[in-house]
Amino acid sequence: MAEAAEQDLLLAAAFVSDAQYNRNIPFRTSPEAVRLYHLYNHWMMRTATYFFIFLNLSLALFEEPAVYPLPFLATSVLEVLCLLVFLGRLTHFAKVTLHNVFWKDAKNICIMGAILLSLTDLGIYGVLRLYGVRSIRWSRFMRPIFLINFAESRQIRRALRSIRNTLPEITYVFLLFMFSLLMFSLMALKLFGERNLQTAEGLPYFKNYLEIVFDLYVLVTTANSPDVMMPAFDFSSWYALFFIAFVIVNTYIFMSLFLAVVYNNYKKHLKNEIRKLAYMKRRKMIEAFNLLKEEEGEQFVVREARWKQLVKLVAPDTSNSHRELLLRISDDEQKGFVDKKSFVQLADLLNIQVVTLKIRRHPLARWAPALYGSAPSRLLRGLVRHRAFVWTFDAIILINAVFIALDEDSISYAEWVFLALYVIEILLKVYTYEPREFFGKTQFWNWFDTLIIFAALTATILNATLQSTMRYNSQQILDIVFILRVLRLIRIVDSIQRFQVIMNTLINIVPTMLTFGGLTLVVYCVFAIIGMEAFHGKIQYFPANSNAPHALECGNPALKDSLFARGKYCKNNFNNFASSFIVLMELTVVNQWHVFANGFANVTGQPAKLYFIAFHIVMVIIIVNIFVSFILEAFFVEYSLEKSEVETAIEQKIQELGMGVQEDELQHEQLLDNMESAEHELEGDGGAKAQSKGLVFKIASKRYRTVDALLQRMFEAEIPLEDEGLSFEEILNLSPSSAIPRSPSSESAA
Amino acid sequence: MAEAAEQDLLLAAAFVSDAQYNRNIPFRTSPEAVRLYHLYNHWMMRTATYFFIFLNLSLALFEEPAVYPLPFLATSVLEVLCLLVFLGRLTHFAKVTLHNVFWKDAKNICIMGAILLSLTDLGIYGVLRLYGVRSIRWSRFMRPIFLINFAESRQIRRALRSIRNTLPEITYVFLLFMFSLLMFSLMALKLFGERNLQTAEGLPYFKNYLEIVFDLYVLVTTANSPDVMMPAFDFSSWYALFFIAFVIVNTYIFMSLFLAVVYNNYKKHLKNEIRKLAYMKRRKMIEAFNLLKEEEGEQFVVREARWKQLVKLVAPDTSNSHRELLLRISDDEQKGFVDKKSFVQLADLLNIQVVTLKIRRHPLARWAPALYGSAPSRLLRGLVRHRAFVWTFDAIILINAVFIALDEDSISYAEWVFLALYVIEILLKVYTYEPREFFGKTQFWNWFDTLIIFAALTATILNATLQSTMRYNSQQILDIVFILRVLRLIRIVDSIQRFQVIMNTLINIVPTMLTFGGLTLVVYCVFAIIGMEAFHGKIQYFPANSNAPHALECGNPALKDSLFARGKYCKNNFNNFASSFIVLMELTVVNQWHVFANGFANVTGQPAKLYFIAFHIVMVIIIVNIFVSFILEAFFVEYSLEKSEVETAIEQKIQELGMGVQEDELQHEQLLDNMESAEHELEGDGGAKAQSKGLVFKIASKRYRTVDALLQRMFEAEIPLEDEGLSFEEILNLSPSSAIPRSPSSESAA
Repeated sequence: MAEAAEQDLLLAAAFVSDAQYNRNIPFRTSPEAVRLYHLYNHWMMRTATYFFIFLNLSLALFEEPAVYPLPFLATSVLEVLCLLVFLGRLTHFAKVTLHNVFWKDAKNICIMGAILLSLTDLGIYGVLRLYGVRSIRWSRFMRPIFLINFAESRQIRRALRSIRNTLPEITYVFLLFMFSLLMFSLMALKLFGERNLQTAEGLPYFKNYLEIVFDLYVLVTTANSPDVMMPAFDFSSWYALFFIAFVIVNTYIFMSLFLAVVYNNYKKHLKNEIRKLAYMKRRKMIEAFNLLKEEEGEQFVVREARWKQLVKLVAPDTSNSHRELLLRISDDEQKGFVDKKSFVQLADLLNIQVVTLKIRRHPLARWAPALYGSAPSRLLRGLVRHRAFVWTFDAIILINAVFIALDEDSISYAEWVFLALYVIEILLKVYTYEPREFFGKTQFWNWFDTLIIFAALTATILNATLQSTMRYNSQQILDIVFILRVLRLIRIVDSIQRFQVIMNTLINIVPTMLTFGGLTLVVYCVFAIIGMEAFHGKIQYFPANSNAPHALECGNPALKDSLFARGKYCKNNFNNFASSFIVLMELTVVNQWHVFANGFANVTGQPAKLYFIAFHIVMVIIIVNIFVSFILEAFFVEYSLEKSEVETAIEQKIQELGMGVQEDELQHEQLLDNMESAEHELEGDGGAKAQSKGLVFKIASKRYRTVDALLQRMFEAEIPLEDEGLSFEEILNLSPSSAIPRSPSSESAA
Repeated sequence: MAEAAEQDLLLAAAFVSDAQYNRNIPFRTSPEAVRLYHLYNHWMMRTATYFFIFLNLSLALFEEPAVYPLPFLATSVLEVLCLLVFLGRLTHFAKVTLHNVFWKDAKNICIMGAILLSLTDLGIYGVLRLYGVRSIRWSRFMRPIFLINFAESRQIRRALRSIRNTLPEITYVFLLFMFSLLMFSLMALKLFGERNLQTAEGLPYFKNYLEIVFDLYVLVTTANSPDVMMPAFDFSSWYALFFIAFVIVNTYIFMSLFLAVVYNNYKKHLKNEIRKLAYMKRRKMIEAFNLLKEEEGEQFVVREARWKQLVKLVAPDTSNSHRELLLRISDDEQKGFVDKKSFVQLADLLNIQVVTLKIRRHPLARWAPALYGSAPSRLLRGLVRHRAFVWTFDAIILINAVFIALDEDSISYAEWVFLALYVIEILLKVYTYEPREFFGKTQFWNWFDTLIIFAALTATILNATLQSTMRYNSQQILDIVFILRVLRLIRIVDSIQRFQVIMNTLINIVPTMLTFGGLTLVVYCVFAIIGMEAFHGKIQYFPANSNAPHALECGNPALKDSLFARGKYCKNNFNNFASSFIVLMELTVVNQWHVFANGFANVTGQPAKLYFIAFHIVMVIIIVNIFVSFILEAFFVEYSLEKSEVETAIEQKIQELGMGVQEDELQHEQLLDNMESAEHELEGDGGAKAQSKGLVFKIASKRYRTVDALLQRMFEAEIPLEDEGLSFEEILNLSPSSAIPRSPSSESAA
């Protein structure tokens, strides 16, 4: 019986933890499976998986063509190791989930297929290599599959699903755009083809239909404006009208239309996904409630003891006092149990970062109370807390900026003075404020300051030592010192309130931006591997003073007189993984991409252009537009959302218990001031506030919330409590594009 | 008494007409002023005003430096004429509006100032010219003021207000962006300044701080990527990281942030403006109601006769049957009067284009009924109505496209065949469908087809005549023929349903796009005039075979070896108004703008770059972003809005009266089919439908609705009928950024 209760608790903990982290894995409910499931979700297991995924991806750096060559044996052993880890993780997952769900999920099949194909390819390549035959390592394209398909990469998969859902509509707009492009090209052929005009390079102008289509496609990206127009414009000014019409229709209208279509679909899709997640969460919390519920009067409830056991299991790191606070919020009237409505909130409660501020006296006040409390010490602390202290250091930063811009020696005398000033500033602040608070989790700028200053100090000292002992300036260290010196100036931004708001938005966007980093990584990896297969070694870079044959033509006579060689672009090649990434980055920026396309087409034949066009369509038209959509949406959500209901409830409770500080006092200087006055009060009477045992709580700053969490809140309000939602099966099978039927349709209003 | 009633009617008509066209001019209510006000709003007066505004703007084409030189006397007489017209229009306006309102309005003061200054400047310039002294015509900058400030240009003023409201927020983001730019430049100076690197042109690389700032600003616009990176990248691959970080932070994040800020403010501002307009409209309708109301039982109403007089005055063009329909909708129960609620709808009712479809027999059926009704004729009409007829002609268009791409002679034999086929197609359609319907107002594609085909036919015949009689090919005519031939192919787009939807969105966007055309015109005019003053004559274009001195350096030795001269950009200069516009267009497209900036800076000194940076900030960062915001918003509104309440009411009524066709039958082929069957029915019994007197109504197609109208509907639903709104004064004084207090706050929900 006790064991059954224990198992129920474990199962309930799994549900709550899933709800808290928005996982949607339908796991088996057998006791062993639940234990394995807890292990599966352990942060160390997850970190290890990511480590091996990135190890697997970065193998391309060491395989031929390598940036840092390793013997084939070493890379293949590493690859086999990675694949075994993936297989192990997948087996673990299979043991945890329901059988039919596991085999119905395309993700798992995909991973298995990729592992199998990779091993096969590795085997074939290895054997052929033994016999001295070179073949293509085609399975390398498949490596991003692991990044996409492991359950941890939910965000990347969501972005990909969003792209897939947008594709049909994008395709129609794209076809219309292509039609317009082909029409304009036809007009261009008719208007300019028979004029015998020449481009600035002396080549025939607008003679060949396919070349015109390519040139005008490049004009849509604006990369060859105004060059492509000049010959016709020189011939007659009226022809400029053709190009103006072209740019308005294709660059301005169609490209905006692409953004509009992508954004519209992204928003629609995001809403549905998030709504699905909110349903899932509610459903899981109700499952957990049903496992633990006991009858109490007319309703089912979860008793206090049981509830505490559950919270301990789900969040072992929370302090007793924090747990007590959560209980006081959930069991408002101290009846000794938590009802369904309050229980369902638990996942959200756990997600809200409630920071426990221990009201502690400064360590010096404990160790040397007489000294710390003396008049000069009090005066000093008063000075540091004064606004003028901040202003003084802002002024010092500005003067420092001028010195950086002016100084001619690499490390000047003034530099030491500024470093010393900054170190003194930090020491003074630590002297005044409580050190553990000063380096609290949410004190971004304090951490930033301290790290930058001490890194700069270390590097400067290291460099000075090297210079005085070995008479040698390390270029790497100097570069780092330069960058650190300039980075210090960023601090001034945080002194201005208006800039803080913008910075907060930017900081909030970072976590989800990593999703797009992942997406970009996937696309780059695939294109880089294709690029290396197609263009490897065709273009070589020679240093400026080289006298190798064709050094000026990037080692390839086919590039003679090309814009590629004339622009000195030889180092932009696909000769290794790192170079390929840099080329792809330059192609993402778009400018001069036609020079690259023409350059590589000269070397390997005209179809090479298709590679560059494909990259432009995938990366710029789709992914960059999704990125912009995401930034727009994040920005609007930031502007439109205020505090959530649950947060307000927690704050109220904290205030009721007299253990709170207002969020609007959260500016760190003020907060710390406030804390000290609270401390005095406690020292004074120790009466009404004795219960707080030297603690105050506060909701962690709004500054570091993710857009995802904000969006989820928007939809949770829509789901009525009594609506137990659909079953897991139904939710999982929901097509992402269909709204959930029972929810109040807010689609039309939005 | 009768005269007073007459005056009330006239005044009410002015109110209703204002409400219908969303004018918000507080006019005087004296009988004479109301008559003058009707005259002021007459379409001929408005068209004349616009004509003179554009005449005034286009004077720059004829003044020195002129595209088409006219004697100074001619242009100055024209200018004085324009100014007199503006003065007349303003006087007319002053006579119409309230005295204090007129003098408080900045618009009017602006216009008067501009007229005065222009006359003064013209006088001074004329006198100085007589004495042979050249001076600057500085008043030319002021000409766009007339375009902005005349009451007709509400949309342009609204866009400008929107920009003004966005400026504070944009400024903060811009300052942060500038800070980031300056920081990166400082790092670049430290990292690369002492390496003694050289650019591809052999110039020193990243030596001078201001030059670095400019180069990195250009990199934000992507125009010098990857050239600006190559020297550092060639030196060490690691330096690529600096540029990647720079592009991510500044190009991707900050530029998206600009778009987000502009879009967010644009949306907020637009909502408030439109809400204000909706209030205005309601208010005016209530004023009109109060003028005409009579007591009836317990409520005030407007009697039928009075109502009809009013509608006749406001919309003299509507047919009797249309008026009868509107009355039946407003006076639902045929009580002989219209109550307040229905009366207030009148402005919207008048705005809905109800097309009166006269069910007429085909003229041939009347003139030669035997022939038209004969079996072969019926078969022919059946064939033309069949889907296969459309498909056949789609196939012909595709074949034509291939012929156009292939043919070598300028006008080939095949061309005549295709032209003949198209003409036959049109004739067959006119034979089958009723001609007046076929060329109905909303039959966009029929008009398009017919115009294109007949223009092509005319031009081809003209060219053939010229060729056979004078053995001379006119290049202009040939060019037009080429373009017309290709434009014919567009028709194929309309055959595919999915493309139609996108085309409709695009067509709906056109009217408001004209606003941005206006805005762009204003910015271009100002910058073109400044550009001509600063750079006129500094750069000359010489044809390729010219042997003028410095022909290759655009006539200016300072451009030797510059990218400007090497790119053969000499024709991009500010030597006349038209050239300046083309240069500004190229700068709007952004690519290579730094080459222009450097070229002109070489010729006239480094401060010239400021002109180009200012243009980039104004045009690209602000106006293009507003344009994109507008397209995004238009697209979303198109997707989210369905039929309005009023429209639904009208349609219901039309259906009730049995005089309607469903909107979903509006596809023109189907519609016409449907009409014919209705015709047969009428011929058959003439019973139930006899009342329709051969008429059916339909709501004009949704295809041609403006975004403005759609948005306005969104907000009208929010205003309760009983809320008479604020007084005129209050509405006029509303700050555009404050929401109207009494409206239900839907801001947070949106």
